[in-house]
Parts: sequence; structure tokens; C-alpha cells
Amino acid sequence: MARVPPGSRADYGFFRALPTRWRDNDEYGHLNNAVYLSLIDTALSLWQLDQGIEIRGPEAARFLVVESGCRFHAEAGFPDVLHAGLRVAHLGTSSFRTEVGLFVNDADTAAAEGFFAQVHVGPDGAPAPLPDDIRARLSRGKPARA
Amino acid sequence: MARVPPGSRADYGFFRALPTRWRDNDEYGHLNNAVYLSLIDTALSLWQLDQGIEIRGPEAARFLVVESGCRFHAEAGFPDVLHAGLRVAHLGTSSFRTEVGLFVNDADTAAAEGFFAQVHVGPDGAPAPLPDDIRARLSRGKPARA
Amino acid sequence: MARVPPGSRADYGFFRALPTRWRDNDEYGHLNNAVYLSLIDTALSLWQLDQGIEIRGPEAARFLVVESGCRFHAEAGFPDVLHAGLRVAHLGTSSFRTEVGLFVNDADTAAAEGFFAQVHVGPDGAPAPLPDDIRARLSRGKPARA
Amino acid sequence: MARVPPGSRADYGFFRALPTRWRDNDEYGHLNNAVYLSLIDTALSLWQLDQGIEIRGPEAARFLVVESGCRFHAEAGFPDVLHAGLRVAHLGTSSFRTEVGLFVNDADTAAAEGFFAQVHVGPDGAPAPLPDDIRARLSRGKPARA
Repeated sequence: MARVPPGSRADYGFFRALPTRWRDNDEYGHLNNAVYLSLIDTALSLWQLDQGIEIRGPEAARFLVVESGCRFHAEAGFPDVLHAGLRVAHLGTSSFRTEVGLFVNDADTAAAEGFFAQVHVGPDGAPAPLPDDIRARLSRGKPARA
Repeated sequence: MARVPPGSRADYGFFRALPTRWRDNDEYGHLNNAVYLSLIDTALSLWQLDQGIEIRGPEAARFLVVESGCRFHAEAGFPDVLHAGLRVAHLGTSSFRTEVGLFVNDADTAAAEGFFAQVHVGPDGAPAPLPDDIRARLSRGKPARA
Repeated sequence: MARVPPGSRADYGFFRALPTRWRDNDEYGHLNNAVYLSLIDTALSLWQLDQGIEIRGPEAARFLVVESGCRFHAEAGFPDVLHAGLRVAHLGTSSFRTEVGLFVNDADTAAAEGFFAQVHVGPDGAPAPLPDDIRARLSRGKPARA
Repeated sequence: MARVPPGSRADYGFFRALPTRWRDNDEYGHLNNAVYLSLIDTALSLWQLDQGIEIRGPEAARFLVVESGCRFHAEAGFPDVLHAGLRVAHLGTSSFRTEVGLFVNDADTAAAEGFFAQVHVGPDGAPAPLPDDIRARLSRGKPARA
């Protein structure tokens, strides 16, 4: 299991502060693994809303999450504030992959890095090409240095 | 993004019934992605307890989760009962990977399949070889057909 | 703060087994307070579904939760199974109060007892008398000995 | 069921901003009831830490939550930011009651108001008088106008 070195803040953009909650810590006194995914989900939703991508309602494009994952580099726990940075790492015909780095308080090195792979589907539930306006909005998340 | 076909119940063992809760559904009316990870975490903990692997207290070996992930094949939602099957897919010197398949109600095909990669660490936090008795217990999770 | 003695299983009906999850425990090694409310919510939703009361979709009557509460008598924690019993303690013109007792494993004395007070509202959001068929279904939850 | 009118920001102190998460919304598109309790729990923990009251470790005084409750006045949902204000409404010999008001974004009227009643217990688990230094710290939470 080769360890990938953790990313830094410069690898991500669009930072949002996500404070932890008492209940986020599990019995080990650190953030439970599922909480990281919930924070990543939140960063992703905030970013999509910020880009004007509807995530709700009958007009919203439908994105299925087909895969998620997270690598853990360092521990975090309540009352830490996590800072979530985001990048769109892959933008395909009907699918895209958003990656989120979570940084604890002032740290420049990520405590965790996760992703969601999403597929745009049509009314029949089958993969469908991303509409042009959504593609344009998603492409704003591509990292400058990529 | 090549899709891996979903596994079936025969690929896993040690099934546990994990009923969903009202709050597990998010605004889309389906299980939130983080909930799957929480169910996988629960299946893993129940299995380790069942094998006599201490997960708490000063005597407990310390396993760091270094990576988690989940692939989603089909939707599930409250009040579905998810059935979690488990297998130890990799058993290395100091690390191991546990995979969990989640099956909705009577379905034989997994709705989601996830994993936790864990590393045994010593008191100094550095990776340390798995103790023999824990290795023996973990090896009971290896799939018969592997 | 006068302590009310805990209820017993005979005070409730319609039991459902709700297994705990690893993540339900907080840093103190016991179920977090919010988890009890989530289990009570689940017991309530399962019971309403069982009684044929729609809780979703355009046809569903709209019940606003105006108050919730929980008294804690004893500790519980993963991997305990909680058994939720329910009763409809009050059934008014437009409002009703559902109480849920949570019993740990084989215990006959409740570890926690909580309630939701709900008000039926019309399309304008104002309280509206409970429709007859819903009143009839809710009244099945009244405790026999009340 | 007499409705108590909602409080305003002036009824509380020690405000903290608690952003909502995508997963906080349940299927109805609003914050799930258990989430409010989790936010109240967080506000309480942040305040106790801020007052120098240890909430962890072998030195920490042990406070059992004996009752919690919440009244709901208005709806809230992701991506709202909730602002939690706090007051210590009762300070007895061994017990105290902390109340938290949750205000949505710029609202001056509480969307929800909840409480935790806690009892200080000794090593034997029986109620024990609050130590003087903790009493002094808790009394800082008493509302000025009370």
C-alpha cells in the first residue's frame, strides 16, 4: 500500500471553513471517518451552488455519485475548524471527479483528501453528456497548474 | 471511468442486518453517501468484536484508517434494511484491507461496496507488524474462493 | 429537577429493534444525545408507515414537529441493540404527541424516553384539524391502560 | 399545547456561527430534528471549553445529561448558517440547565430553542455538589436581565 504524500493548500481553491461538532468525534476522540465524507459532500454542494449549478428542484441536472474515497494523512477532532479546498480533477463527456482537501486550522498540509466521482444522467437514468452551461461552470474548478 | 460490475452475496461472508434510519436519507430521498461509510464502519467493528479483536481500551491494538472508499451501484433508502457482508481482501505485514458489500433487503447484487485500509501502529504511531494472534483472527475473514 | 422514574416495556407497544452503529458513540463512549432523537424519529416513522400514514410525497399530510424532548435514565452504547416502543400519548384536534421508550438489549426499564409533538398543517402552513382517517390510524397508538 | 413565543438574540449571549452541512437536511429538505440537538450540544461544548471547564480527560468533572428538549419555531436548512446563543438558565446544587437559541442567518427571532439539563456526579455516579470553581464558571452564563 504505497502512501501518496499529502497535498497542500496550493493544490486546491475555493476554500470554505467547516467547523467541527462535538458529535463528529467518535469513541477514539477523533473525527469519525464518515464525517470527512460529509464535509467533502458539503464543500462540493457549496461550490456547486456558488457556481450557479442547481442541486435541487425539477430544473436541477441529476448527478449520480458512482464512487467516493478518502485518504487520511493526519488526525483532526472537535473543536478544530477544517478548511475545505476543492478542485475538479477530471471533466469527461458525462462524468466528472471533484477532489476536496481538508486542512486542520492553520495547517498547510492536508489532513485528509477525498473525492466524489459523479455521472450526469438523463431522465431515463442513463449517462448523458454534460450540458454545455454545466460543463462551463464545472471547468472553473480545474486547478490552474494542472 | 470504467465501471466495475457489482459483487454478489457469495463474494462476502459474516452478514449482519443493518436497518436504515429516517435521518439516513438526504434531501434526494436516498441514503446519503456518508451513511454508507458509517454502515461499513459498523460492519467492520461488529466483525472485529466477533473475532475477539479488541477495538477499545488500553489493551486494544491500534489500527489507523489510511484510506476508505465506496462504489455505488444502486440506490437505497429508509426504511430499507441493508445487509452487510465482509471479507478481508488483503492481509500484509502491518496493514490490511477489509471490504464490505451492502445488499438492500433481498437483493443478491450489492448496492454499494466499500473498503477500509488500516495500518497497525505501535505506541510511537509508526507502522508495526501485526501481532500473530490478530493476524490469525483477521485471516478468518479471507474469502474462501480467493 | 424532580426525576421521573423510568417507564417499562408494558408502557409502550409496537416494538422495533434498532441496532446501534459504531459512529453513534461519542467521545465519552456512549450514545450521543442526538442519536436517541434520531432513533425516536425512526421508530415514529416506521410506526406511521406501518399504520398506512403516508409520510412522503404530494399526498402526504404535513405534520410539523413543534417540540421534542428526551429524558435519560441509563447509558447505552455500541454494539447495544435498542428496542423502541411507542405510544400516542395525546391526540388533539390538530396536534398529537408520540412518546417512544428505548430499551437496551433485554432491559425492561427504559434507558431513555422521548417524544415528538406534531401539528397537522394545511397547504397554507396553519394548523388544520386532523383528517378523520389519520385520526383513526393515530388512535391505534393509544396505550391500552391509559 | 400552548405555544411559547420564540426568543430573540437579546435573550442569549456567547454567540457562535455553526454552518449547516448538506447531510443535515432530511428528506423534507429541512434540518432534521436531531441535527438541532447536535448543534446545541456543540454550542454547549464550545462554551464550556471557552470558560475553561474541562470536558475531557481524567481531570474533567463528570456531567450527566438527564434531559434534553427543543422547541421549533421556524424552518432552517442547508446552506443556512445557524447562530447559537447560550444562557445558563438554572444553576442548582449539583445540577444546571443550559439553554441555547438557534438563529438562522440574520434573523433576530429564534428558529429553535433547546436545553440540556446536566447533573454533576462523583466517582460513584451519584449526584455531587458542583465544585466551587465550576460553579463560578457556569454562573458567567447567567443572562444579565434574569
